[in-house]
Amino acid sequence: MTNDSIQKLFRSEIASMSPYTPGEQPQTGKAIKLNTNENPYPPSPRVIDAIHQATSKLERYPDPLGTSFRRAAGDVLGVDPEMILCGNGSDDCLTVLTRAFVGDGQKLRLPYPSYILYRTLAELQSAQFEEVAFDKNFGLSERFYGNDESLKLIYLPNPNSPSGTLLDHDSILRLADSVDCPVVVDEAYVDFAPTNCISLIQQNPKIIITRTLSKSYALAGLRFGYLVAHPEIVQTLRKVKDSYNTDMLSLAGATAAISDQAWLENNVARIIATRSRMLLALRNLGFDVIESHANFLWCTRTDRPLKPLYESLKKNGILIRYMNYPGWSDGLRISVGSDEQIDAMLVVLRDLLAS
Amino acid sequence: MTNDSIQKLFRSEIASMSPYTPGEQPQTGKAIKLNTNENPYPPSPRVIDAIHQATSKLERYPDPLGTSFRRAAGDVLGVDPEMILCGNGSDDCLTVLTRAFVGDGQKLRLPYPSYILYRTLAELQSAQFEEVAFDKNFGLSERFYGNDESLKLIYLPNPNSPSGTLLDHDSILRLADSVDCPVVVDEAYVDFAPTNCISLIQQNPKIIITRTLSKSYALAGLRFGYLVAHPEIVQTLRKVKDSYNTDMLSLAGATAAISDQAWLENNVARIIATRSRMLLALRNLGFDVIESHANFLWCTRTDRPLKPLYESLKKNGILIRYMNYPGWSDGLRISVGSDEQIDAMLVVLRDLLAS
Repeated sequence: MTNDSIQKLFRSEIASMSPYTPGEQPQTGKAIKLNTNENPYPPSPRVIDAIHQATSKLERYPDPLGTSFRRAAGDVLGVDPEMILCGNGSDDCLTVLTRAFVGDGQKLRLPYPSYILYRTLAELQSAQFEEVAFDKNFGLSERFYGNDESLKLIYLPNPNSPSGTLLDHDSILRLADSVDCPVVVDEAYVDFAPTNCISLIQQNPKIIITRTLSKSYALAGLRFGYLVAHPEIVQTLRKVKDSYNTDMLSLAGATAAISDQAWLENNVARIIATRSRMLLALRNLGFDVIESHANFLWCTRTDRPLKPLYESLKKNGILIRYMNYPGWSDGLRISVGSDEQIDAMLVVLRDLLAS
Repeated sequence: MTNDSIQKLFRSEIASMSPYTPGEQPQTGKAIKLNTNENPYPPSPRVIDAIHQATSKLERYPDPLGTSFRRAAGDVLGVDPEMILCGNGSDDCLTVLTRAFVGDGQKLRLPYPSYILYRTLAELQSAQFEEVAFDKNFGLSERFYGNDESLKLIYLPNPNSPSGTLLDHDSILRLADSVDCPVVVDEAYVDFAPTNCISLIQQNPKIIITRTLSKSYALAGLRFGYLVAHPEIVQTLRKVKDSYNTDMLSLAGATAAISDQAWLENNVARIIATRSRMLLALRNLGFDVIESHANFLWCTRTDRPLKPLYESLKKNGILIRYMNYPGWSDGLRISVGSDEQIDAMLVVLRDLLAS
């Protein structure tokens, strides 16, 4: 068979779609990685202990519902464990949500610019995606509140990527009241922000919150996320997830991680301190940097092209993310690393800008 | 909102479908578990060592393509690593395959009786499933070879569950030659069988093989599976899987597991020896037991009802699987445990049959 005839075996949408491309993940070498919003600090030592203990029964299937994690998370968040669904990373939660709510030809709405994966999830469902531009301060534009019969799901990253900006509770409640479909507030970065939306679920059960342990809990390698929603929603979503979507080790590690809130708070405090210093330093270098409530900064400027800066940093062993959003702007998204990493990045960047 | 109005938010197919129910997984207690085909023996100690080592960098994302595993598996299987896709359990591979090939209203074919999950995967895609009954010896009936324009994927578990029976290479090649869609040979249990179908991919690139480390490698708790297919198929399937579908710990553990073939062979030999002894013992107790090439036996009888036996075993702390396939038969599927577990089960079963 030729490759062309092999492609014809696939659903036409799959054959024609572009792949979602995550940031580079070099598995060797000593690059300073500021490109995928990983945490520069290690996870709680209790996580490692819990994983070591969990290796004693790997021949057995894990708990399909991740009850131990749901109980621990319920305590921390102040919600009923029946409102929590565990996922193999929050990407798994987003996949489950998209499959549950959005069918062939239906519509999924997302703000622009935001997380590119939402588009891919729509395409995999043969659904339409409707990107509605933020207003210039990354607030929701009037069009975002519009209802529409074919609209079946809204994704709202909050804090948003790449901007790090945060929407207020009133906007989100108004949105959920204005439309007939669920509103997913993707809180991947919320532990770096002053507020979150968990309490809004009580006010409107169409609000669904997704979370990840990859960023604030320093567990990107573990693949663990979860969502919080009305119990009736969670129960129906269980039909859509793979039965054993979270493994024994990640369940044990995630349960230990969320139970160590002191470690989280200390880790987050260090990152927020570095973020404040980094924001000023980048503004001093002439970048426009919007205030961020996440563990990255979105840096733009109009006086010189940005892509060569990204490329030159890469040649110097420093990975950041260059992102181009046609009709909006391009920019550099730089993760908040350790103080040493950020200082090293700033030294190189200063030299590049002076040359 | 009422629960009814919440259900209306979901795709209608999701709201109306029945959930797939895996076997019971009690997380505590001392039950003898012979219900979900877990391995009674532990995984290779190298797996545990590799996992311990991999906990040192959990703040980083894993390799999205699982290159270290694909290289090790390629060596063992004698295939190009570009022919391998890693999955979060083989269920994840089956989900990716179904989403890649079967669209709304299209058709997925599976034999009957076989793995119930295939139906669920079709329903999640709003696809039709066509169950074609095996012939009485669990061979493919003529109807199974029929081509059909709307047919987009065929699932063929081999060895089959619940029967443990194995189809020969000629049947599978004839099938792949007869239809226009891919044929997925689900080899979850193949390490307990004398032959496998990897070499058939060279003869017909529409043949796709799925594997799991849950059974023969004693790693059900790790959630790791993979598929082997033509490189063009694998490359396109990467668009459908979650970017980081396998975590750092399972990748490390799975790579160590597949690299320790001596451990696998020893483990499999013990299970096959127990299986032979268990087959004779169950036949002596009056069951009809078909010869199995998997790590379970399918036990039927017509002289007395089977469900009460399952229930009584459960009361005695022994879990097996009672399965009822309307239009075919019901039966007891009993996993091949350790010799001690099987002896304990046989003692109770003998008592129950005598009473």
